[in-house]
Amino acid sequence: MLIVMESGADENKIQKIVNFIKDKGFDAHVSKGEDHTVIGAVGRKVIDKRDIELLEGVQEVIRISSPYKLVSRVFKQSDTVIDVNGVKIGGGHVGMIAGPCSVESYDQMDITASKLSSCGVKILRGGAFKPRTSPYAFQGLGEEGLKILREVADKYSMAVTSEVMEVSQIPMFLEYVDILQVGARNMQNFNLLKHLGEIRKPVLLKRGLSSTIEEWLMSAEYIMSGGNREVILCERGIRTFEHMTRNTLDISAIPVVQKISHLPILVDPSHATGLRDKVAPMSKAAIAAGADGLIIEVHHSPETALCDGAQSLYPEDFRVLFDDLKVLAKVVNKKF
Amino acid sequence: MLIVMESGADENKIQKIVNFIKDKGFDAHVSKGEDHTVIGAVGRKVIDKRDIELLEGVQEVIRISSPYKLVSRVFKQSDTVIDVNGVKIGGGHVGMIAGPCSVESYDQMDITASKLSSCGVKILRGGAFKPRTSPYAFQGLGEEGLKILREVADKYSMAVTSEVMEVSQIPMFLEYVDILQVGARNMQNFNLLKHLGEIRKPVLLKRGLSSTIEEWLMSAEYIMSGGNREVILCERGIRTFEHMTRNTLDISAIPVVQKISHLPILVDPSHATGLRDKVAPMSKAAIAAGADGLIIEVHHSPETALCDGAQSLYPEDFRVLFDDLKVLAKVVNKKF
Amino acid sequence: MLIVMESGADENKIQKIVNFIKDKGFDAHVSKGEDHTVIGAVGRKVIDKRDIELLEGVQEVIRISSPYKLVSRVFKQSDTVIDVNGVKIGGGHVGMIAGPCSVESYDQMDITASKLSSCGVKILRGGAFKPRTSPYAFQGLGEEGLKILREVADKYSMAVTSEVMEVSQIPMFLEYVDILQVGARNMQNFNLLKHLGEIRKPVLLKRGLSSTIEEWLMSAEYIMSGGNREVILCERGIRTFEHMTRNTLDISAIPVVQKISHLPILVDPSHATGLRDKVAPMSKAAIAAGADGLIIEVHHSPETALCDGAQSLYPEDFRVLFDDLKVLAKVVNKKF
Amino acid sequence: MLIVMESGADENKIQKIVNFIKDKGFDAHVSKGEDHTVIGAVGRKVIDKRDIELLEGVQEVIRISSPYKLVSRVFKQSDTVIDVNGVKIGGGHVGMIAGPCSVESYDQMDITASKLSSCGVKILRGGAFKPRTSPYAFQGLGEEGLKILREVADKYSMAVTSEVMEVSQIPMFLEYVDILQVGARNMQNFNLLKHLGEIRKPVLLKRGLSSTIEEWLMSAEYIMSGGNREVILCERGIRTFEHMTRNTLDISAIPVVQKISHLPILVDPSHATGLRDKVAPMSKAAIAAGADGLIIEVHHSPETALCDGAQSLYPEDFRVLFDDLKVLAKVVNKKF
Repeated sequence: MLIVMESGADENKIQKIVNFIKDKGFDAHVSKGEDHTVIGAVGRKVIDKRDIELLEGVQEVIRISSPYKLVSRVFKQSDTVIDVNGVKIGGGHVGMIAGPCSVESYDQMDITASKLSSCGVKILRGGAFKPRTSPYAFQGLGEEGLKILREVADKYSMAVTSEVMEVSQIPMFLEYVDILQVGARNMQNFNLLKHLGEIRKPVLLKRGLSSTIEEWLMSAEYIMSGGNREVILCERGIRTFEHMTRNTLDISAIPVVQKISHLPILVDPSHATGLRDKVAPMSKAAIAAGADGLIIEVHHSPETALCDGAQSLYPEDFRVLFDDLKVLAKVVNKKF
Repeated sequence: MLIVMESGADENKIQKIVNFIKDKGFDAHVSKGEDHTVIGAVGRKVIDKRDIELLEGVQEVIRISSPYKLVSRVFKQSDTVIDVNGVKIGGGHVGMIAGPCSVESYDQMDITASKLSSCGVKILRGGAFKPRTSPYAFQGLGEEGLKILREVADKYSMAVTSEVMEVSQIPMFLEYVDILQVGARNMQNFNLLKHLGEIRKPVLLKRGLSSTIEEWLMSAEYIMSGGNREVILCERGIRTFEHMTRNTLDISAIPVVQKISHLPILVDPSHATGLRDKVAPMSKAAIAAGADGLIIEVHHSPETALCDGAQSLYPEDFRVLFDDLKVLAKVVNKKF
Repeated sequence: MLIVMESGADENKIQKIVNFIKDKGFDAHVSKGEDHTVIGAVGRKVIDKRDIELLEGVQEVIRISSPYKLVSRVFKQSDTVIDVNGVKIGGGHVGMIAGPCSVESYDQMDITASKLSSCGVKILRGGAFKPRTSPYAFQGLGEEGLKILREVADKYSMAVTSEVMEVSQIPMFLEYVDILQVGARNMQNFNLLKHLGEIRKPVLLKRGLSSTIEEWLMSAEYIMSGGNREVILCERGIRTFEHMTRNTLDISAIPVVQKISHLPILVDPSHATGLRDKVAPMSKAAIAAGADGLIIEVHHSPETALCDGAQSLYPEDFRVLFDDLKVLAKVVNKKF
Repeated sequence: MLIVMESGADENKIQKIVNFIKDKGFDAHVSKGEDHTVIGAVGRKVIDKRDIELLEGVQEVIRISSPYKLVSRVFKQSDTVIDVNGVKIGGGHVGMIAGPCSVESYDQMDITASKLSSCGVKILRGGAFKPRTSPYAFQGLGEEGLKILREVADKYSMAVTSEVMEVSQIPMFLEYVDILQVGARNMQNFNLLKHLGEIRKPVLLKRGLSSTIEEWLMSAEYIMSGGNREVILCERGIRTFEHMTRNTLDISAIPVVQKISHLPILVDPSHATGLRDKVAPMSKAAIAAGADGLIIEVHHSPETALCDGAQSLYPEDFRVLFDDLKVLAKVVNKKF
């Protein structure tokens, strides 16, 4: 942490700051420049930098060590590769996760999974507990949904991911699911993150609707600091003033995250755009930008879907898209 | 719901849309204009309007009934007044809630409450479970904190509010707390909202960091639809591109909410700005704009506070501010 | 325009609205639904919909015809293809524009153009008038810069684009430049747009930093309504709360624009990200998403560039990228 | 400027950075901490900090001197007070500017000015050149509008403000107008700002729709660096995701600006909210937060106004509001 004193701050003020940070458990290192004195504060304590900024004579306080450690490339240089039942995600391996927004019935999942599996998809998605903005909308099948998901996935030798909503649901999810999803609204549900740090299955952590990349990585740090090193990040659009798409998919988050973190990053073009006809171009954009995978909503009959049919692909459109994506991945030296 | 057909959409296309919405349980009402045919869909079902927008010949679908009912002025014209141990909030009565960010110890609470009480504050705040972005930061005293809060409040005949984080904590909170707070990060934790609908104590619902006013009211609707009619809204700043304040306090949300809803709306200037010296001007602005109350962080020793000391007022500054606010309230025909 | 009356609005209120819009020059078409009466207002006049929303008994006013006409696919179904000295942009033809941020000297431009030309680039960019946030920063060479740009481009048989800042500069630009650029800050400089509608050279219109797609298309409409049909749109990043990139490149604007407009859309990954190492992945993403071209900053010696060196590619890196992009373009059925 | 080296950067890398910044005209001051070496770069040159951040071994570059000087409280501690024909704005004096969005006719201005003058308003506003998003909307009366404005103002001994759009209009404005307004869209029209620096009349500089406070102050610096010290800032709402108001009025900008700058800051509640019934509460909020004045749209017949009638107050409502504001101003120790 660097504490920049105001131009002209006298010895007395400087000494007070030095004493203050020493009291807080830091070492102080004073360096006098022509205009400004800069005090370096070295230590492992956590301090709110505003506490120092409010002291007399202080112009600005700058944090120089990043707040996350385990998620950082400094901590681990090589790409983390997550292995889900033999399917690899990260480090040149692009993962494809597909399936409907919600598990609605055994038949629905069976038809969809059969088609996805025949395209080469090895990880099936499907929501069992749905957070809906209206109390009157379909809320998911609950545990029954997870059972169906598991049963159908086993039939086609697929792995399974679904969104966990609460700490109390974790044991249930561990029984049925291979990757536990944390939704955008729970990205800063720190209690949930802490408990997910104690399990030993991969966690897919979606970026919050208005979260900075730094906050997102901090949430990943929460999980990793508990001992779970298998975190997959997932960009799913951020909220901006633009309303022609549901959210603005931040494709640039892909290279930004890949530079500072070793964790794999997926993209969810379905939730990001909210519009079926935008899913294909945004999927291609994500792969071309170097994403480590995609999570795409596919429904065998979107017009009768109980949830988000408008953003779900038809299985035949998905097949065409997936073929294109395989070609694109090669151009950027990756493979599905 | 109004379905605007594309200019030139033929009879065949129109009929298909009519059939589609009838299948979904709506009545259809066709009206042919010069340029556009408009189909009115009348019914009580919930439908994703994008499902219709994707159909051939449809230009746009417009929802005309608001998604919330119980929170609306149409449902209840007169201001809702919440009575907390004799303190009224709403309908001309301005409530003042004050206290430290976190409960740290009995002594800390005792000193602060004593000072606040002597100023005339009747509702004490204090966090017992703290959601922190860093896993290494102070996480609150837990139930012990709630006990202290209650004990101290009783000593000074004050009511008490604190943030509940999870469904499983609700029974514990009901034992100690008079108003249950829902934090910004939990504004769309629908499961929590649903359970808070079943209790019979007031809920203070903070606006999410990037939530629209409509989404916020929908969350209030969740609570009210469960039977709990005592919801207090609390504006606490939204995320924008501006970084000189922690968030941008949306003061205009006050008159906007008051026009469309009967619920009282408070303002939290401490979290919104994150800076002690901005708390007084923003508190005054909120009252002048017609807010039904404030929730302000006050600590007897901000420089040693375990949490958010930088945005906490000294008790003596709070006293001066509160006096000014009482005068201001009168100018806008309200009273503390 | 549809005027939705409040539930329960009586005949008297309805008649007042009908009279009001007839006075304003519209035809009125009343349609009574179960809950709401809807009045269709038909006409070619321009009216501020808030004027009607403020009238008694009105719940909401909805504009159903889009505010732009000439830029719309409804007006012209086939893609507009711009031909710049034999180079085509739009309709399957991907254009590549490259060059330094600013024209600094003849030698600088000669070296850069020579390298770009040898890669196959046919349109050269270079700023002569630079809008800078600091009054003390390099402001461009002015007309001398345009002369150099033209001379060097002619030497390598390239076309030329540069940013025009003011109405008074248009004649000068027409003398030297093949495509006139309008910068993000001037996207709503309506006077400039109006004058650019009267010229007969293509205009490259950048999206404003916080402009919606609708506003951007309205600005294109301004130019087209003056008679100039050669408008090229250029997405260059929007302002959001995320600060790890200079702006957030809105890749989804590509398919959104292409659906509603026939105009070609380019992407500027250099200004959007502000970081050299993010230019390649975002260029690939743009092409994969279907962009009609790119405008990329390239400097023979970025570390000594007078402007934006940090986001400029080295010529050799550009060559590698351009080769990759040609392969990618084929995958999405386009060609440079 | 502080250059923080990566943890473990060796002597060789440090030396290269030192050489680089010396070449750029800075003095270097190396300070070795436990984890990080920090290089202080001292000098008056302008450099893009990204140029240094891209060099090997550099973790981060931090600017420690603010980019603006003349607008800063460091440069001038006492509040700037602008005197417009005897009316003072700043330093405890609150200014009230009122009038219609556009000058429409002599009669319209005469009626409005007569009523405003009788309330005690001493500065009249009215647009003569209107930037409109639609090419078909009313564009203002031009110079004729300025003449009317002047003539009417003289009749009631008022001062006058109107928006200047282009450099070429400055001489015309100097003839008729007492305060030249720069609109939000022109906040970074640096050429215009530069020329306004050369005049000797006050400039009212509106904040751009998506401009940070720092950028806004930099634009004020442009004007002041030309020699014109009479700049009045005007907050008029920023663009966010919230759509129930036209923009989000950033009331917290008032205390933020007043802390770092000596310039007066006004608020425009009419453009910020876009809604008549929100003008009064937001005006009160602005004064309570310490604003140095307001600019409010008032029209004698809003329903027939050619522009922004929906956000214009009726003269009688304005009178009531102004009376309330005078009382509020006293509470915060200011006076109209």
